[in-house]
Formats: sequence, structure tokens, C-alpha cells
Amino acid sequence: MALLPDQGTEIVIPVCAVIGIIFSLVQWFLVSKVKLSPERGGASAAKNGKNGYSDYLIEEEDGINDQNVVVKCAEIQSAISEGATSFLFTEYQYVGIFMIAFAILIFLFLGSVEGFSTKSQSCTYDKEKLCKPALATAIFSTVSFLLGAVTSVVSGFLGMKIATYANARTTLEARKGVGKAFIVAFRSGAVMGFLLAANGLLVLYIAINLFKLYYGDDWEGLFEAITGYGLGGSSMALFGRVGGGIYTKAADVGADLVGKVERNIPEDDPRNPAVIADNVGDNVGDIAGMGSDLFGSYAESSCAALVVASISSFGMTHDFTAMCYPLLISSMGILVCLITTLFATDFFEIKAVKEIEPALKKQLIISTVLMTVGIAIVTWTCLPSSFTIFNFVLKNPVQDVADSCRTGAATNVIFGLALGYKSVIIPIFAIAISIFVSFSFAAMYGIAVAALGMLSTIATGLAIDAYGPISDNAGGIAEMAGMSHRIRERTDALDAAGNTTAAIGKGFAIGSAALVSLALFGAFVSRAEISTVDVLTPKVFIGLIVGAMLPYWFSAMTMKSVGSAALKMVEEVRRQFNTIPGLMEGLAKPDYATCVKISTDASIKEMIPPGALVMLTPLIVGTFFGVETLSGVLAGSLVSGVQIAISASNTGGAWDNAKKYIEHARTLGPKGSEPHKAAVIGDTIGDPLKDTSGPSLNILIKLMAVESLVFAPFFATHGGLLFKIF
Amino acid sequence: MALLPDQGTEIVIPVCAVIGIIFSLVQWFLVSKVKLSPERGGASAAKNGKNGYSDYLIEEEDGINDQNVVVKCAEIQSAISEGATSFLFTEYQYVGIFMIAFAILIFLFLGSVEGFSTKSQSCTYDKEKLCKPALATAIFSTVSFLLGAVTSVVSGFLGMKIATYANARTTLEARKGVGKAFIVAFRSGAVMGFLLAANGLLVLYIAINLFKLYYGDDWEGLFEAITGYGLGGSSMALFGRVGGGIYTKAADVGADLVGKVERNIPEDDPRNPAVIADNVGDNVGDIAGMGSDLFGSYAESSCAALVVASISSFGMTHDFTAMCYPLLISSMGILVCLITTLFATDFFEIKAVKEIEPALKKQLIISTVLMTVGIAIVTWTCLPSSFTIFNFVLKNPVQDVADSCRTGAATNVIFGLALGYKSVIIPIFAIAISIFVSFSFAAMYGIAVAALGMLSTIATGLAIDAYGPISDNAGGIAEMAGMSHRIRERTDALDAAGNTTAAIGKGFAIGSAALVSLALFGAFVSRAEISTVDVLTPKVFIGLIVGAMLPYWFSAMTMKSVGSAALKMVEEVRRQFNTIPGLMEGLAKPDYATCVKISTDASIKEMIPPGALVMLTPLIVGTFFGVETLSGVLAGSLVSGVQIAISASNTGGAWDNAKKYIEHARTLGPKGSEPHKAAVIGDTIGDPLKDTSGPSLNILIKLMAVESLVFAPFFATHGGLLFKIF
Repeated sequence: MALLPDQGTEIVIPVCAVIGIIFSLVQWFLVSKVKLSPERGGASAAKNGKNGYSDYLIEEEDGINDQNVVVKCAEIQSAISEGATSFLFTEYQYVGIFMIAFAILIFLFLGSVEGFSTKSQSCTYDKEKLCKPALATAIFSTVSFLLGAVTSVVSGFLGMKIATYANARTTLEARKGVGKAFIVAFRSGAVMGFLLAANGLLVLYIAINLFKLYYGDDWEGLFEAITGYGLGGSSMALFGRVGGGIYTKAADVGADLVGKVERNIPEDDPRNPAVIADNVGDNVGDIAGMGSDLFGSYAESSCAALVVASISSFGMTHDFTAMCYPLLISSMGILVCLITTLFATDFFEIKAVKEIEPALKKQLIISTVLMTVGIAIVTWTCLPSSFTIFNFVLKNPVQDVADSCRTGAATNVIFGLALGYKSVIIPIFAIAISIFVSFSFAAMYGIAVAALGMLSTIATGLAIDAYGPISDNAGGIAEMAGMSHRIRERTDALDAAGNTTAAIGKGFAIGSAALVSLALFGAFVSRAEISTVDVLTPKVFIGLIVGAMLPYWFSAMTMKSVGSAALKMVEEVRRQFNTIPGLMEGLAKPDYATCVKISTDASIKEMIPPGALVMLTPLIVGTFFGVETLSGVLAGSLVSGVQIAISASNTGGAWDNAKKYIEHARTLGPKGSEPHKAAVIGDTIGDPLKDTSGPSLNILIKLMAVESLVFAPFFATHGGLLFKIF
Repeated sequence: MALLPDQGTEIVIPVCAVIGIIFSLVQWFLVSKVKLSPERGGASAAKNGKNGYSDYLIEEEDGINDQNVVVKCAEIQSAISEGATSFLFTEYQYVGIFMIAFAILIFLFLGSVEGFSTKSQSCTYDKEKLCKPALATAIFSTVSFLLGAVTSVVSGFLGMKIATYANARTTLEARKGVGKAFIVAFRSGAVMGFLLAANGLLVLYIAINLFKLYYGDDWEGLFEAITGYGLGGSSMALFGRVGGGIYTKAADVGADLVGKVERNIPEDDPRNPAVIADNVGDNVGDIAGMGSDLFGSYAESSCAALVVASISSFGMTHDFTAMCYPLLISSMGILVCLITTLFATDFFEIKAVKEIEPALKKQLIISTVLMTVGIAIVTWTCLPSSFTIFNFVLKNPVQDVADSCRTGAATNVIFGLALGYKSVIIPIFAIAISIFVSFSFAAMYGIAVAALGMLSTIATGLAIDAYGPISDNAGGIAEMAGMSHRIRERTDALDAAGNTTAAIGKGFAIGSAALVSLALFGAFVSRAEISTVDVLTPKVFIGLIVGAMLPYWFSAMTMKSVGSAALKMVEEVRRQFNTIPGLMEGLAKPDYATCVKISTDASIKEMIPPGALVMLTPLIVGTFFGVETLSGVLAGSLVSGVQIAISASNTGGAWDNAKKYIEHARTLGPKGSEPHKAAVIGDTIGDPLKDTSGPSLNILIKLMAVESLVFAPFFATHGGLLFKIF
């Protein structure tokens, strides 16, 4: 048995989760110390009157005591926050209806497996034991599905609230220096990271303990039902990513095409009618969408490891500590990330722009090193010295791209596409090696744990990820509030420094998604009682080729959505510039609200078809074509989706960086020159690739796998109707 | 037994092949009647002096009797022909070295299977019989590999010769009307189509009969060795497609970027230094490359069907007619295409531009209908009433895109990409259904025959395909020779009418490639003695995910090659415009030769790495990782490559058509307007996608499968070194 007794596990997990939540509240409190209300700020300035003057001398910054700027920032912040809140509420209403309908489907499909009987049945993997009836699995799966969905909503929504709370504060702190601004932005990111990681862990832990009251020793049924948590989390994530992604890119592309290209006004210029919509988009897409997404990944990889463990020796011998190994890794992750965060916020102080990027990279390195030690400790204390795993298998360069802008947009696009295609080579080899090594250690459980290991420092990863859009928004607020160029330069530096680390984070997300899907796929095949998934049987092969097609279909839908939403936005922005007198001269105010509404309406409308494609495919294939074809579909969409996700992200990133390179190096010409225009076209094309299609594809591959696993009992009993008829 | 006696088969096949060759020579003779030499033309005009005047009155066309135009056209034609010949010779030299090295590899690898022993061995599939030694398979495989390569070279080279013979003749005929020009272009296409189909059939038939002298009753060994013919054909095709594709697109993109976009001069303007290189490119890429490619497809699908038949009841009972069923289908195809061609050239006459596209579509319809009847007849007379098949499986919208140009190049590119992604949906479902249905009828043999059926009207398909670039070149010659706009409009109409039918042809090529690869893959798995290809074993899965990555790697290489070659071309064209005085005014002649040299050097240099990637991957994977991983690689590259091939072709096509739509509809602005510029950017990006990466990917998936099949005995004996060591 494990060194850590079961009572120890029952204390360690909730304690770590609560520590994470408290830590995030402390960070929030520290952020809230930056005052946004001029009255109180004025009062405190009056109270500290005696040393206020000397402070003013030390910080020779413009506008530091200008209360008008504070008022303006607060106004812009509340406009952004209102837009984001109203969009998310609308989104959650529509998705809520879909989720309830889907929950009913889960109940009906899974309940029908044994004809809604309430009698206990013999277990699937241990025929001698009695397990709870399929109806119980149906009810508890539905409950955990809804629980996962709600936790995902809460994660995304809280993230958005924190981000819109922090963005103007970052702007104001930027007046005092880049170090102060960095601390605010990074702390806010940490609030989101820790809240999400701790919350996900706590809810999952509580759900397991509550379900155990009913299931007792039937761990096979218990963890089968818990899988619904992963499905709920990532279904919500899908809509969050797609809806948010369309919103943000429609606004961004629309704002840029008219503002930067046609009117030659800078980014985030308050004269641009789409500027508020653009900033709202950052918060609903990059923050709320990403929050839901990472929560989904976390929930799925935990569920994948748990479901494998439940039918292995851990589950059979009812070794609770070993069973909870995945949760204990997450608990350790919270502690590790907590220490890591202190390195960025308390142990060292950032004084210059060039120190930011190394500080962020140090976050990744410190958390990885500490977590390696942490995982070793968890493994040593929590796993028994020997165990058996149920074996499912019954047989055993940016500068080039910038350079190409010299000859126009077309060569830039060709080079960028080629670079994105090329960028899949190394990650794919890395994924292949991880799969082979982790499978050799502990079969599918090894793969699930490898995915969890990649996600164990989720709090730090999310802090870095969220910090980017917050700084971006802070820059936007500075521009709109008419603050000096130095403020803008500082927030830009904050934003740019996070790009490389965020790209590494994206790579982690894709890699772990591939591993999670494979582990879920393995669990599905076992649960669906298929012996082998032989590519050469036509049922599997047609699934494979159709599955490989799905990411294209999905990307076509999302890219087309961004394209048509952006078209509408461009026309509206043009209309306002042409019809509102004095807008270009900065004398009249644009109608921001109409632009916000266009993005909202478009993304709500356009989010449904791609979401439905992903959610319904496993159901349709499983029901009509059966589990063999569905296995093919899962394998096909996994191997093809990973490639498109990586290449889309990197193509988009390369164009983005090529544009920035031209803007900063200035060797190829100033802003507005032909090479710069070509670079802007590339950047615009890259936007939907890297921020809408790419990240959503991650979810597509995981979601189809977890959904198939949840519905596996139904497909095994009633699936393959079409082949049964003929 | 079959209705047709074996002696009948031995007469029918060569007779049909010879009929095809004679028919193509007749067509060539008819084309050659259009005279290019002004002396003889002058003499004949003098001879027909009495009615020469009335002729002149009937044909009220400009320059019909202008001997200067004839001289100029002849000059331009010979410049194009020389450039193309010199490129192909250079290409064949480099590829020749590679091919000889690869032939030696084949011999060494296959010979080593039984340690170069000269003793007979028991057969693989029928252990009771004695088969020829592995050394014989090594020798005959090497011979048939070289035979396939040489036939492919001849096919491509002859195609190029005919095309460069016909292009100026088409230009001259266009003076007399669009109907006359159509006949010349179409006849020339038919010369190539029939020569290629008949030649491929004849060489294969002779090789089988010669090999039989040695192999006797050992049909298993005979047809295993014949598979080398497919490998040789498609290896050559790969280099032809990649080298030719880079050449043509480097010249095309380079010429357009400076000429159309920067200097605002029309396409094919003689002042543009890259104009000859551009026209050479059409002949070496679209004609010679496509000729090799389609020959490769034909050879591979024939070999796939033959190798499956040889170990089924046809081969076991030595039923020669049934065994030759694939060759008999091809023979019937030649007769059907012959009749079909007469409908275009003799039975009806084209008088107006709007009649061309229906005439081409009619070609497809007539050939398909006749071939359906033809295949029924062949099947009825040549297959025995019952037979058993060895079962390998041991278990059993353009206007939208144009519209998006209103808001710039970026939205055009986004819409085009989305459209290309969407276009994979229907073909993939069609392929999936074909696979399922044909497998249900006759397992893997069904799939191989389905592929062959798609390719059986290859002569007509190739005639239509080749006719496009010939008309395109004819237009170029008209422009360069300074002929009137009416001539240019006629050749443009010829070219445009072929685009839709050519796109259908491309779809056929991709679909048949998918089927052929699957059949070859099945044969490989059986020959390599693997029982199942289970996706869930890590060895297979890592192969699957790496295989799905290969088409991206390959596309990255080819697109980057086009990009950098085009960059060099753009700089050279710019240099000439800037340094040659009087060039822009049409007073000085540009230096065409340097541009031709740039394209030649770039494509020879850049063709090697992607070619080596495809050729070496199966060897490396099979030798070091073994047959399971190689199976995964084949399945992965097949399902992922098909998608990229379809979407690349259609994205490129959509941009091309969007540009043409804007140029003709003129509702979105004239040439040179902002929407038109955006459309030109899209078209330029699409060029390498639709003409370099897309068509090469077809070859990638087939070539890896046929190569694995040829090397299967080696991999089965000595493969998987890495796993054997650890």
C-alpha cells in the first residue's frame, strides 16, 4: 500500500485546494489596492499630503496626479466590462439551452442501455461482482456533466471579471513604471490561474466523495459517471472558444482593416468605432474562452487517469490514495505554482523592460523543476511499490517571413503558410516519443498521467497566458484615455514579453490534448468492448478518413464565420467614418455600441454550427455506424487535428511577429510602407487561424473522445444501426 | 473459366495498344498540317494563287496572310521548346543518378532477404509450392523499376514535345476562328493521352510476358516483381511534378508580381523578361509533370490489382484471362476514348466560344457512359462466373470569395482558405462510400479495380488536361508575337473552358490515388505478414501521427521552394526593368535566358529534398521501426494527405476563379482597382498550392505505399532494427 494513509489523502487534497483559493484571493486584494475612483484617490493623496510632494518628485512621470485620466480609465474599463458581461450572459443563455438538451440526451441514451432498469448488474470488467444499474450511471453522468459545465462557466466568467478589473489598474500603474504595471498584470493572471486550478480540483474532489456515498465499493461505476465532469467542462469550453474566438477576431480584423490599412490611424485609437468591441473581444475570447478551455483540459486528463485507474489494481483493491494519484499531482501543482509565483511578484523586482521576458521564462523553468521534484515525491508517497494497469490493448524562422514582405503580401502569405506547415515536424516527433515512452511505462495510464503532468503547473501557465491580454487591454485603455506615449510603450513591452511564453503554453496545450485524447480513446475502446481497431477493416478505415476530414470542416466553419463577421464590422466602421461628421478629426465620438452588438450577434449566431458538428458527430457515428467506425473517426480526427492546430497557431504567430519585426527593426520601411502593408495583410489572415480555429481544434479532438467514452455503454448495446439493418 | 480464351487475351491487349498508338500518330499528322514555316506556306499560297484571293475574302481576319507573324510565332515556339527540352534534360540527369542509386538499393535490400541465395524457396502464400528465389525477385524488381522510370520519362518528354509543337500552331489557327484553334489544341492533347495510355499498357504487357519466360508458373513471384514498374513510374512522377511545379510557379509568380502588380503591363507581355520562362514552365510542369504523374497512377493501380489477383483464385488456378482483367479494362478504355475523341474532333464542329465548355463536358459524359458499358462487357467475358479473392484482413462557392475582395486581400485569403477546407467534405464522403462498397464486393481487389475504373478513360482525361496548357501557351505566343486582341480572346476562351473539366479531372486523380494507396497498403500488410494494424498499439499510433505530419512537411518544403525561387525571379525581373534602357517602352529586348536559367537552377536544386523525404521515409521507418510503424505511417499519410491535396487544389482554384470573375464581371472594379489587386494577391498565393503542393501530394501517398510493398519482403525479414536492439 501507499506510504500516505487514506485519511492523509482526504486531508491533503481539500487543504491544497483551499490554499490555492486563499492565495488567489490575497492576490486579488493586492490588485484592488490600486484605486480607480478619483475621490478616494484624491482623499488618500490629501491624507498623505505631507509626503505627497516628494513622491511626485521621485516619480517624474506625466499625468501621475491627473484625476481626469483616472476618471477616463475607469469609464473605459466599465464600458469594456459591461460589453464583456453582456456578451457572456447572452452566450451562456444560448449554450445553456444546448447543454440542458444534451444533458437530457445523456440521460436517455445511457439509461436505455439496460432499458431503464433499477436492478444491479454484473460489472463490465469483473463479471463476478455486482455493480450499480445503468440507470444510476445515466443519472450521475448527467449530474457530473452539468457540474463540469457550470464549473467551466464559473471559471471563464470569473477570469473575465478579474481581467476587466485589472486592465485599467495596469494602465494606471504603468505611469509609475514598467515594474509596477507588470506586478498588477501578473498578479491578476495569477488570481485567475489559482482560482481555476483550485476550484476544478475541489469540485472534482467533492463530487467523487458525494458520489461515493451512493456507489460505495462500485468504483468502476463511480468513475465512469465522473467522466461526465470532463465532458461538461470541455463542451462548455468548445462554445466559449468558438464564440469568443469569432467575437474577438471579427472585432480585431474589422478594426484593423479600416483603421490601420484604410485610415492610417494607430491601433486602439478612440476614433475607431470598433475599438471597444476589440477590447471586449480580448476578454471574452482570450480570457474567458481560454479559462474554460484549460479547465476542460484539466478535467478531462484527470477523468482519463481516474477511469483507467478504477479498473486497474488501484480500483480493484480499493486503494484510495493510489486512486487519487492524479488529484494529488494537481494538489502538488498548486503548491509548486504558489512558490513559483512569489519569484515573480515578491522575491525579485522588475525594473526594466528587458527583464520581463526572462522573468516569465523563469516562471516556466522554476515551476517545471519544482514540479519534477514534486511529482517524484507524490509518486513515492502515494503509489504502492507495485501495481498492475489494465491493458486496453488485447494484443500487446520569423525573419525569413518578414523579408518576404519586400515582394508583397502574396510571398509573405506563402512563406508564413510554409513555416506553419514546417513547425509541425518537431512537436509531432516529441508527441510520438512521449506516447511511446509513457505507454511503455504504464500503458494507457502512463499516457493519461503524462498529459496530467504537462497540465500540473496549470496555475502558472494560466497566469502567464492571462497576463498577456490584460496588458494588451491596458495599452488600449492608455491609448483611448489619451495618455502619453511612454505609458503605451510600457504596456506594449509587457504584452510582447508574454508572447513567446504564451506560445510555449499553447504548445503544451496541444501536446497534452493529443495525449489526453489518446488516453480517452483507449478507455473508450475498452469500454465499448472492441478487441482491436484494425485500420484495414473498411468500417474503421472510412471512419479514419472521415475523422481526418472533420478538423477541416470545423476550421472552414469558424474561419468563414470570422470572415463574414469581419466583413460586417468593416462596413459598419466605414459607414461611421463616412457619415459621422468630425469623427476623423477627433471632434465627435463614434458609436461603439453598434460595433459591440455586431460582434455579439455574429458570434452567437455563428458559434452554433461548429459546436453542433463536434457534439453531434460522435453521437451520429456511434448510433448509426457503430463503435468500430467511431474508433476510426476518433483516431483520424486526433492525428489530423493536431497537425492543423499546430500549423494554424504557428502560421498566425509567424505573421504577427513578422509584422512586429518590421515595425521595430524599421530596416524594411516605416509603418505604412509597402512591406509593412504586406505584413499587416499576413497578420490579419493569421488572426482567425491562430486565435479561432487553432485553439478550438484542441477542444475538438478531446471533446469527441470524452463524449464517445461517456456514451460508450450505449453504443456498445444499441450502436451501429445502419449495419444491423443491412 | 472466362468466356474469352487465353489466346484471345494475348491478341486483344497488344492490338488495342497498337490501335491507340496509331490513332495518336494520326492525330499528330493532322496537327502537323498547320504549317509553321513561311517559305512553304508562301509556296503553297503561290500554288493556290488562283483561289488565294477568294480565301482571303472569306476569312476576314487580321494578319492571316502576314508571313512576319508566322516567322515570329515559329521563333517564340522554338525558344519555348528549347528551354523546356534543356530543362528536362538537366532534370533527367539529376533524377537519373538518384534512380540508379535507388535501383541498386532495391537490388541489395530485396536480395538480402534470403542472403542472395540462388535456391528456390517455398512460396509465401502457398507453402506447399516452390517459388523462385528472393534474388530473382530482386533482379526483376530492379528491372521493372527501371522500365517504369524510363516509360514515365518517355511519357513526360513526348507530351512536352507535342505540346511545344502544337502551341504556335494553335495560335496561328486562332486567326481563322475559335473552332479551328480548338481542334488543334484538342488533337494535340489527344496525341499525348493516347500515346501515354497505349504505351503504358504495351510496356506492361510485354514485361509480363517476358518475365513469364523465367517465372513460368510462379505467378506470385512474377507479379511481386512487376510491382517495381509502378514504383519506377511514380518515383519519376514525383520528381517531375515537384521539379516542374517549382519551375512553373517560380516563373509565373515572379512574372506576375513585377509585371502585373508593379509595372501594370498585361500577362505574357514580351517586355517582361520572365515571360519565356513562364511559358516553358507550363510545358515542363503542367504537361511533362502531369504526363509522368498520370502514367504513374495508371501503372500503380494496374500493379495493385495484378498483385492482389496473383494470390487469389485467378493466380492459383493460372487463369490468364481473368488475371489480365485490369489490362483488359485499360484496353477497352483506349477503344472507348477513341470513339469519344471523334465526337470532339470530327462528329461535331465548334463555331462559337460558348460551345467549347459543353463540348469538353460532353467528352467526360460520353467516355463515362461508354466505359460503363465497356467494363460490363469486359467483366462478363473475362471473369469466371465465380472466384475467390485473397482476403488480406485476417479478421474480417467562388462568388463569395470574389465579393470578399472588396475588403482587401486578407478577407479574400481567409475566405479562400475556408472554401478549400470546406471542399474536402463531399469528396471525402464519396471516397469513404466507394471504399466501403467496393470492399464489400471483392475486398482489396474491389478497391484496386475501382481505382482502375476511375483511370480507365485516362486518354480522354489527359487530352482535356493537356489541352489547357497548350491553349494557354498559344495565348502567350499571340501576345508576344504582337497579334491582335481577337486572337488572344479566342485562346483565352479555349483555356478558360477547360478549367472546370480539368478540375473534375484533378478530383478523379485524387480519388483514385486514395483508392490505389489503400489497395497497395492492403497488399503491403499482407506481404509483410502482419495480422492486424491496430491503431491502439503504440508502434502503430506513433506511425499514424507521424504519417499524418508528412504531407505538411512535404508541402512546407515545396511551398518554401516556390517562394524563394519566385523571390529570385522577382529581383531579376526588377533588375532588368531598372537597368535595361528602353525596355518598358518596348524599344529594347529583355534578357529572357537569365530568367529561364533562374527557374531551371532553382527547381533542380529544390526538387531533391522533398523527393528524398518521400523516397527515404518508408525505407528508414521500415528498416529501423518495422512494419507495424510503417503501416501506421502509410495510413496516416493517406488520410491526411488526401485532405490537404483536395483543399490545396480547391483553395487555389477558388482564388483563380475569383480573380477571373472580377476581371470579367467588372462589377467590383476594373483591372488595377483595389478589389482586383486583392484578387491578384489571392491568385498568386494559390499558385503554389494548386500547382505544386496539391498535385505532388497525390504522388506522395501512392509512392510511399508502392515502395513499402516492393520492400515488404526485406522489412519482414530484417526490419525493425531499433526495437530489436532495445
